[in-house]
Amino acid sequence: MKPLVAVVMGSTSDWETMKGACDSLDELGVSYEKKVVSAHRTPDFMFSFAENARENGLKVIIAGAGGAAHLPGMIAAKTTLPVIGVPVQSRTLNGLDSLLSIVQMPGGVPVATTAIGKAGAINAGILAAQMLSMYDLKVADKLAQKRKQMEESVMESSDQLG
Amino acid sequence: MKPLVAVVMGSTSDWETMKGACDSLDELGVSYEKKVVSAHRTPDFMFSFAENARENGLKVIIAGAGGAAHLPGMIAAKTTLPVIGVPVQSRTLNGLDSLLSIVQMPGGVPVATTAIGKAGAINAGILAAQMLSMYDLKVADKLAQKRKQMEESVMESSDQLG
Amino acid sequence: MKPLVAVVMGSTSDWETMKGACDSLDELGVSYEKKVVSAHRTPDFMFSFAENARENGLKVIIAGAGGAAHLPGMIAAKTTLPVIGVPVQSRTLNGLDSLLSIVQMPGGVPVATTAIGKAGAINAGILAAQMLSMYDLKVADKLAQKRKQMEESVMESSDQLG
Amino acid sequence: MKPLVAVVMGSTSDWETMKGACDSLDELGVSYEKKVVSAHRTPDFMFSFAENARENGLKVIIAGAGGAAHLPGMIAAKTTLPVIGVPVQSRTLNGLDSLLSIVQMPGGVPVATTAIGKAGAINAGILAAQMLSMYDLKVADKLAQKRKQMEESVMESSDQLG
Amino acid sequence: MKPLVAVVMGSTSDWETMKGACDSLDELGVSYEKKVVSAHRTPDFMFSFAENARENGLKVIIAGAGGAAHLPGMIAAKTTLPVIGVPVQSRTLNGLDSLLSIVQMPGGVPVATTAIGKAGAINAGILAAQMLSMYDLKVADKLAQKRKQMEESVMESSDQLG
Amino acid sequence: MKPLVAVVMGSTSDWETMKGACDSLDELGVSYEKKVVSAHRTPDFMFSFAENARENGLKVIIAGAGGAAHLPGMIAAKTTLPVIGVPVQSRTLNGLDSLLSIVQMPGGVPVATTAIGKAGAINAGILAAQMLSMYDLKVADKLAQKRKQMEESVMESSDQLG
Amino acid sequence: MKPLVAVVMGSTSDWETMKGACDSLDELGVSYEKKVVSAHRTPDFMFSFAENARENGLKVIIAGAGGAAHLPGMIAAKTTLPVIGVPVQSRTLNGLDSLLSIVQMPGGVPVATTAIGKAGAINAGILAAQMLSMYDLKVADKLAQKRKQMEESVMESSDQLG
Amino acid sequence: MKPLVAVVMGSTSDWETMKGACDSLDELGVSYEKKVVSAHRTPDFMFSFAENARENGLKVIIAGAGGAAHLPGMIAAKTTLPVIGVPVQSRTLNGLDSLLSIVQMPGGVPVATTAIGKAGAINAGILAAQMLSMYDLKVADKLAQKRKQMEESVMESSDQLG
Repeated sequence: MKPLVAVVMGSTSDWETMKGACDSLDELGVSYEKKVVSAHRTPDFMFSFAENARENGLKVIIAGAGGAAHLPGMIAAKTTLPVIGVPVQSRTLNGLDSLLSIVQMPGGVPVATTAIGKAGAINAGILAAQMLSMYDLKVADKLAQKRKQMEESVMESSDQLG
Repeated sequence: MKPLVAVVMGSTSDWETMKGACDSLDELGVSYEKKVVSAHRTPDFMFSFAENARENGLKVIIAGAGGAAHLPGMIAAKTTLPVIGVPVQSRTLNGLDSLLSIVQMPGGVPVATTAIGKAGAINAGILAAQMLSMYDLKVADKLAQKRKQMEESVMESSDQLG
Repeated sequence: MKPLVAVVMGSTSDWETMKGACDSLDELGVSYEKKVVSAHRTPDFMFSFAENARENGLKVIIAGAGGAAHLPGMIAAKTTLPVIGVPVQSRTLNGLDSLLSIVQMPGGVPVATTAIGKAGAINAGILAAQMLSMYDLKVADKLAQKRKQMEESVMESSDQLG
Repeated sequence: MKPLVAVVMGSTSDWETMKGACDSLDELGVSYEKKVVSAHRTPDFMFSFAENARENGLKVIIAGAGGAAHLPGMIAAKTTLPVIGVPVQSRTLNGLDSLLSIVQMPGGVPVATTAIGKAGAINAGILAAQMLSMYDLKVADKLAQKRKQMEESVMESSDQLG
Repeated sequence: MKPLVAVVMGSTSDWETMKGACDSLDELGVSYEKKVVSAHRTPDFMFSFAENARENGLKVIIAGAGGAAHLPGMIAAKTTLPVIGVPVQSRTLNGLDSLLSIVQMPGGVPVATTAIGKAGAINAGILAAQMLSMYDLKVADKLAQKRKQMEESVMESSDQLG
Repeated sequence: MKPLVAVVMGSTSDWETMKGACDSLDELGVSYEKKVVSAHRTPDFMFSFAENARENGLKVIIAGAGGAAHLPGMIAAKTTLPVIGVPVQSRTLNGLDSLLSIVQMPGGVPVATTAIGKAGAINAGILAAQMLSMYDLKVADKLAQKRKQMEESVMESSDQLG
Repeated sequence: MKPLVAVVMGSTSDWETMKGACDSLDELGVSYEKKVVSAHRTPDFMFSFAENARENGLKVIIAGAGGAAHLPGMIAAKTTLPVIGVPVQSRTLNGLDSLLSIVQMPGGVPVATTAIGKAGAINAGILAAQMLSMYDLKVADKLAQKRKQMEESVMESSDQLG
Repeated sequence: MKPLVAVVMGSTSDWETMKGACDSLDELGVSYEKKVVSAHRTPDFMFSFAENARENGLKVIIAGAGGAAHLPGMIAAKTTLPVIGVPVQSRTLNGLDSLLSIVQMPGGVPVATTAIGKAGAINAGILAAQMLSMYDLKVADKLAQKRKQMEESVMESSDQLG
């Protein structure tokens, strides 16, 4: 199945975080591809990837990066597809640098930013599915089911306190 | 034309910021409705609004709030449509509180967060259009045109330096 | 004995922190119930819980949450009982996000916020007892005793230095 | 009418902020006294004030302070009545210092902290009333009415957008 | 005279800040060109500018940007000339976002970062001259003179106190 | 020998940090006493300790505390002897809360603040000795010797690189 | 009268802040000199000033600086007299940079740091007097009087509320 | 070979970080010397080192320091050679103090600041080489090769995901 979503990250060390996005997409039945694309080390590849994303059939791009996290914003500068940015937790500043570098985009070029770290990656996958669900009822159903399961799981968990 | 996007905000004082989202949507030819919905002062209305959003034909919800900005996250908890959160600049902490309250969502319920303040609101409108552009070529064209205009406008602006 | 205080938290992973509130209430002889209530995963249950809290005989609600910590503020939006918010220490930002999400409530809907983490949970239990002590002399006595014990324990501890 | 609540602040310059607490108490029909009590400039007066608060018939103390805001925590150290701390916005650090100085109390001596600045002061007054409402139905009614008014006021305000 | 230094910035609104770099270069007799180059709005132009910088005779590039300030880092990714990044003061976060986005570059692609705002721009010009002074004695002399003047000016200024 | 310096701390858990102050005083031959004094748990003892400090022959008070670190500032409010405050590293906010709570004193009541954690405690001991050295040549000599030793130790350490 | 205290600052623009230190010293009858000494623009003068301070009869040095505020720490590196550092409020980061640059000194070379801005300067003057008061009863008396005045002034100020 | 670059650091404990700079210089074939120079413990040595750097044939100085990191700025005050500052990660504030102390230099005396910690040290070495490459084609070639290798290494790494 041709991928609708691309999950890209600046380095293999981001995989531990970004796996969360892939897990969500797997769970919700959304096809995706994953690859390493570095804003600073493979800038030309990044540009050609982003420039061709729409005509290659991609609908959403999820990009994770840490520190001076330029990847999501630069991909967003080269495509008009929605780009979701995941701030990877950095070693020295806990991802606050990643978050600000990703979210504080100037007017004109948005990046849909999620939470720092694993939770943000998980949510990036869900958010991509939510975008697809705007016109894909099957994905919408999967999302509704997942919500229901989360709710039930919380309702039962009070017993585990203490 | 039935609105595809809802632009909601916690208070009329957020309008100065959130107008940016409406301007973007106007420019890109996307239909929208706008209203005040307060997480803390109209919680029930917020829930019914969010719960019925999908069946009312909405595709995307843009929610702006400041301080302990719960509106985007709570709407996201009551719909599986994509929710875009705009951190409104707060008086005391410059919107850092708004940003963290909106972006740091737990795994399972994403909010697509944009920059603090006006730039974030402008981008929220564009981001909503980008989501629609996944399946709407007319919006995709408008986005491409807007990009081109931005590029040209920058290219010409060097003459204004000094 | 019918509970006067409810100790709620967004997830079982918050229990390690929130146990501190229960320990304080136990020590001060205040009856309580504890349960998992998630703002984002069980929003409807959260609302019905909060809406019925007063008529169910509750006097104070203690709510702990981390990250985009919406639970205390949203419960506060659905009851006029005093709500105490405990910012649970988050993984990436050490609870600064939890603190700001809880404490920066807009005018009209207060949350009585305590310190980040375990100390805050311990104090939430004591604070609930202090509120009850306004009209309950037995609790007031217990609080006075506890203070005396803390004082004596500090006075004796200088011998342990070095 | 004998005051049930005391509104104290470190300096007359805090009055502009702390007036918000008095306005809330006036609106909700709660009797109060107000005075300047400085932790650093009138430490002995602060201690005698706090020590005698309960036997003087006070039920709640609201204390506002900025910077190294020690007033709420030190009053809390000398009484077992509930103490509400309002972080006054400071000149250099926007009240982040006030907030941390007030909220980060060690286990054993809680301060119920509200938002930085005017909103926090307004909410301190409401919170004091909420505590009284635990056993005072008249105050509970006033609080319920106020909530209803806030809700209606928001519901009507959408018309003012644009 | 062919420019040795390029002073680029993301938008004409950065000129007020970046003028400081040009003033320093003027004062130190270093030839330069200035232009608007936007990472997000003119990404292709940015890349071709950076890629050709060395063969066009440039020795140093000074790049100023604010918010999610990607310009210096992305230029650095496309040239091996030294790139100096100036964090322009942003509206909401005072340039802390600009600073972190510029300075926190991953190992492999450095950006020589200066202070936030005007002082940083002034210093960027001086730093570029310092780099040139490594092999250009005339510039080294100018720098030494400037230092001497600064010293004398401070020594005389004590009389102005009080 | 009658102690000239008092080293006080809010809890025995601060000893690991505050031992640094005692080590410095030992090394510099300054007599001192050490004890646990808690602003929040032994407020009365704190006040009598501070009030009598000068007539008890103390010259300087070193006070260490973490979180809402009120101890140094409250001692300073009850004596006109110089008070040195050491921000103990806190669990959740790394001592930033301790630092701001100690250093941001209002005009009128100073606290001489040192660095967060062990380095700050070591320096508090040295600073106390420096104050005594204003009129005590023996201490001045010891300080000069210590400086010389530090210098020599650094000069020799380059050999250990690599 | 030979000055016992030196008040130095990095630039004449710091005078508005540092005047507070001189006012305190005037009020407390302590002799002082004031001058501009810049760590970065007059490094040699700074060193000779600090190196000779003790033999020139100075007892305490008050140094104010903003941004990368190196002046207090570098003076402290060249004298064993107590050095008080005043973080001047900076334009971009409100003095947080000044504070951290001054207070976070490594073990071995302390700087007695006061609050950011005017309050810190006022307190630096008082702190210098407190150090002198260790052996000068006249200064001790002045300090005691000032405290009494501050107390009385606060006690009377409650009447001005409302 | 006479060293063109000096790598200095405030303490041997900074070596673990600063080794990164030496590794980069080794890899790029740039000669260098390394030594411990402490701003606060060997101020005179620091000044003579910096003052003589240019006539000793040095072209660039890399200086690493943590906390109140004065070393890079003070060296910069005593030479007009370019100085690169590396903020070493500090124990309590994760290097945010180091970063601000180094980067926020006043207009007139620049420090070329890199990222906090190891990545910053690695980049400091590369940046020094980039400066040399302005007039040294051999170094320019090495830099170009290194870039190519980084690019290839990233391109191949996607296979390692999952």
